[in-house]
Amino acid sequence: MNRSMIRFVIGSVLKVEAVLLLLPFLISLLHHELKAGLWFLPAAAIAAIVGILFTIKKPKSTVFYLKEGCVCTAMSWIVMSVAGCLPFWLSGEIPSFTDALFETVSGFTTTGASILLEVEPLSKCMLFWRSFTHWVGGMGVLVFLLAVVPMSGGSNINLMRAESPGPSVGKLVPKIKSTARILYIIYFVLTFIEFVLLMIFGMTPFEAICSAMGTAGTGGFGVRNDSFVSYSPAIQWIVTIFMIMFGVNFNAYYMIIFHQAKKAFKMEEVRVYLSVIVTATIILLLDTVHVYGSVFEALTHSAFQVASIITTTGFASADFDTWSQTSRTVLVVLMFIGACAGSTGGGIKVSRFILAIKTFFKEIGGYIHSKSIKKLTMDEKPVEHEVLRSVNVFFLTFLFIFTASVLLVSIEGHDLTTNFTAVAATINNIGPGLSMVGPTCNFAFFNPFTKYVLMFDMLAGRLELFPLLILMTPRVWWELLHPTSKHDK
Amino acid sequence: MNRSMIRFVIGSVLKVEAVLLLLPFLISLLHHELKAGLWFLPAAAIAAIVGILFTIKKPKSTVFYLKEGCVCTAMSWIVMSVAGCLPFWLSGEIPSFTDALFETVSGFTTTGASILLEVEPLSKCMLFWRSFTHWVGGMGVLVFLLAVVPMSGGSNINLMRAESPGPSVGKLVPKIKSTARILYIIYFVLTFIEFVLLMIFGMTPFEAICSAMGTAGTGGFGVRNDSFVSYSPAIQWIVTIFMIMFGVNFNAYYMIIFHQAKKAFKMEEVRVYLSVIVTATIILLLDTVHVYGSVFEALTHSAFQVASIITTTGFASADFDTWSQTSRTVLVVLMFIGACAGSTGGGIKVSRFILAIKTFFKEIGGYIHSKSIKKLTMDEKPVEHEVLRSVNVFFLTFLFIFTASVLLVSIEGHDLTTNFTAVAATINNIGPGLSMVGPTCNFAFFNPFTKYVLMFDMLAGRLELFPLLILMTPRVWWELLHPTSKHDK
Repeated sequence: MNRSMIRFVIGSVLKVEAVLLLLPFLISLLHHELKAGLWFLPAAAIAAIVGILFTIKKPKSTVFYLKEGCVCTAMSWIVMSVAGCLPFWLSGEIPSFTDALFETVSGFTTTGASILLEVEPLSKCMLFWRSFTHWVGGMGVLVFLLAVVPMSGGSNINLMRAESPGPSVGKLVPKIKSTARILYIIYFVLTFIEFVLLMIFGMTPFEAICSAMGTAGTGGFGVRNDSFVSYSPAIQWIVTIFMIMFGVNFNAYYMIIFHQAKKAFKMEEVRVYLSVIVTATIILLLDTVHVYGSVFEALTHSAFQVASIITTTGFASADFDTWSQTSRTVLVVLMFIGACAGSTGGGIKVSRFILAIKTFFKEIGGYIHSKSIKKLTMDEKPVEHEVLRSVNVFFLTFLFIFTASVLLVSIEGHDLTTNFTAVAATINNIGPGLSMVGPTCNFAFFNPFTKYVLMFDMLAGRLELFPLLILMTPRVWWELLHPTSKHDK
Repeated sequence: MNRSMIRFVIGSVLKVEAVLLLLPFLISLLHHELKAGLWFLPAAAIAAIVGILFTIKKPKSTVFYLKEGCVCTAMSWIVMSVAGCLPFWLSGEIPSFTDALFETVSGFTTTGASILLEVEPLSKCMLFWRSFTHWVGGMGVLVFLLAVVPMSGGSNINLMRAESPGPSVGKLVPKIKSTARILYIIYFVLTFIEFVLLMIFGMTPFEAICSAMGTAGTGGFGVRNDSFVSYSPAIQWIVTIFMIMFGVNFNAYYMIIFHQAKKAFKMEEVRVYLSVIVTATIILLLDTVHVYGSVFEALTHSAFQVASIITTTGFASADFDTWSQTSRTVLVVLMFIGACAGSTGGGIKVSRFILAIKTFFKEIGGYIHSKSIKKLTMDEKPVEHEVLRSVNVFFLTFLFIFTASVLLVSIEGHDLTTNFTAVAATINNIGPGLSMVGPTCNFAFFNPFTKYVLMFDMLAGRLELFPLLILMTPRVWWELLHPTSKHDK
């Protein structure tokens, strides 16, 4: 286990976070709320000091296997969340440490599940920090690190592999550093366009920046108590379209930029993703049209909710917990499907479902034509056996973590719908569920034990299960505590 | 597609059913309820006539692939259910055809979900037939056919494979016919022992035979409105122990009979199955001990319910829908685990979970020790890749059918717990679920559409998904309707 490299990466993450923590401080200066904003300084200082201490000594070896990538990613996300929750807690705006940590984990993992009864009483700099964590977590802090910090060694792909969503990591260009940079540039530009559009259609700059960051990371924290209910249809549609866009595999944008738009629109995952959105919107429209005054209004809310749930953003333009059971069940199904691999969205990912369904049809085909052993293809290329196997294992692992979590949450004694959708909404990084965790409710009523279970689910969901599980194995801890091999110093 | 062979097998099944339908007629003579009992005669006559017409012409070829095995099994079960529901419907004891069919499908698939508000008003011969369908469906009517009807050709394994539960079919002895006979003998003897014990502890012969058959098939239809609530603890314990016994892989009994008891107790699946039962019982005991007067009473109900749900029987000794959320969630988890492969129980099966969990740990191991590619083992033998693949595909397929069913059932608009557990209780062949389909309720209130969805789930669950799905492919129907190959006449 290359411990010095793990220490170095965690230190670098903390240094980046120290800089990021200065941004809300600047916002507090702008909005004359220095009393609240000052609390970002000690948090930044702590992150900076620990970060510097961790990175003084350069690692001798930069060799880095997937195991180290996983351990490093899981630890970075935990450390980052602990440092990030300090301003909420120290300022007393969220008095309980567990709650502050829950809110920060929910932010970085782009879940958007909140323990706040009301968000409007929070100071502006805190609201900004909440939304900013979404933006940072959406594309991933390690990907950011790879883009900006000079890190030698060719093993960086293992860091990216552990943090990026989807069954297989695609490098856009041969160099990891360039791939990470291109991703962040696309991400930044799209966020900026949304920010400008939201301002044009009547949002204040502050609301627009927070909403744009929440959409970009497919997070879900809003700045109004009622999320997007009280905004105009124009704004709701802008957000709908951008949510859908941030749920698309970023490879597609790369192709479009480099004049391969045709290839981008031919991507199977993107096509299926858009088809599911259209189908679900039509079902919800038919089902809610009698509830709302006009077809347009029903369409607005249907499209908004479908986009919000499938991309795992979690904004709400209406209280969908009051909709019919069919609509609610469709939304629960969308929770699990999730967005495209390589997007900022969570969930199980459309590409995994495509591969699962193809595996299923291959099996049926195997029964019918006894001898046909055709290889599965995706985007007209054969899918490697290793990828298929990892998809199957992902589904099984997801099932286990999901079941164990529902069992642990059920100890508190709430109804099955609450427990089931609370776990579904956190492990898929959505935010609101149904019943007691519906869009007009929050997660404050859970006891600390349940909150830690849900935090685990949020992190497990964001990092796609394995990094966190690997961090939990005794073997890894043994190796972390007992330096033996040549890479251990 | 060997159409003549399919026709011949379905005909044979109907002939067997015609004989079986005479048994409840005899029961009606014993209980002086000829008016009800007479209705079994036209049903038997119809089955016999169609059966004879279908089997007059012997098939030229007995070559039989897995495809034909699946088609044949799925069709046999549907035809058998239609013929079997006639007495209920013709006699007017269940006035609606859909309801009568639901009750019969629920019987043969050993589900035990009922549309009857009260069972006690039914005539004795009808109650006998209900429980008898459990007994026949438990071990499988095609296995019975293989045991008693002389069928030439070596392809019979494909019939058994399609009907028998579990990831891989084990032949106890080289000849299928002998395997089928041994299974039925063990089955009959165990049922008989339970029948005698129940009588000794105070049941009437009629109650004892029905309860024994319901336990043996892990069915769940009872003869009292309150299932097993009003029986003595002694009877409840006998039923508990026999439910657990019928959920054990029958290979274990074969080993015990042939002096290999040590090997039987070493079977991984049996050990895990018993461990899960003990663990779940302890959790439920701790959770319900404050509800009941004594530890013994709480233990009785906990053990009964755990055994009833994990073996997918569905008897109830208490209204577990009123228990705490933890207990209810544990029971929901047990619903999916199910009994051992090669038993009469349903569910996903313990062995599939063992293989899934081993796959999961192998994956984690793969991350940690990059180069260890050890083969998975079960009972100290390496597991073939083909079996592992089929287990993975089974989980995926189960997930799809489950989700689609919950969506279809949700159209009716009941709460998520009702929809979710109604599908769970039917696809896993259990019977009662929670909320509106809890142990004191029934399935009568669903509309016909939902009932057909649930019937599909019961058959899909009993036949382990694929036979029914294969019957639904256009290709199979094309082949059935267009004789082309040499086996087609």
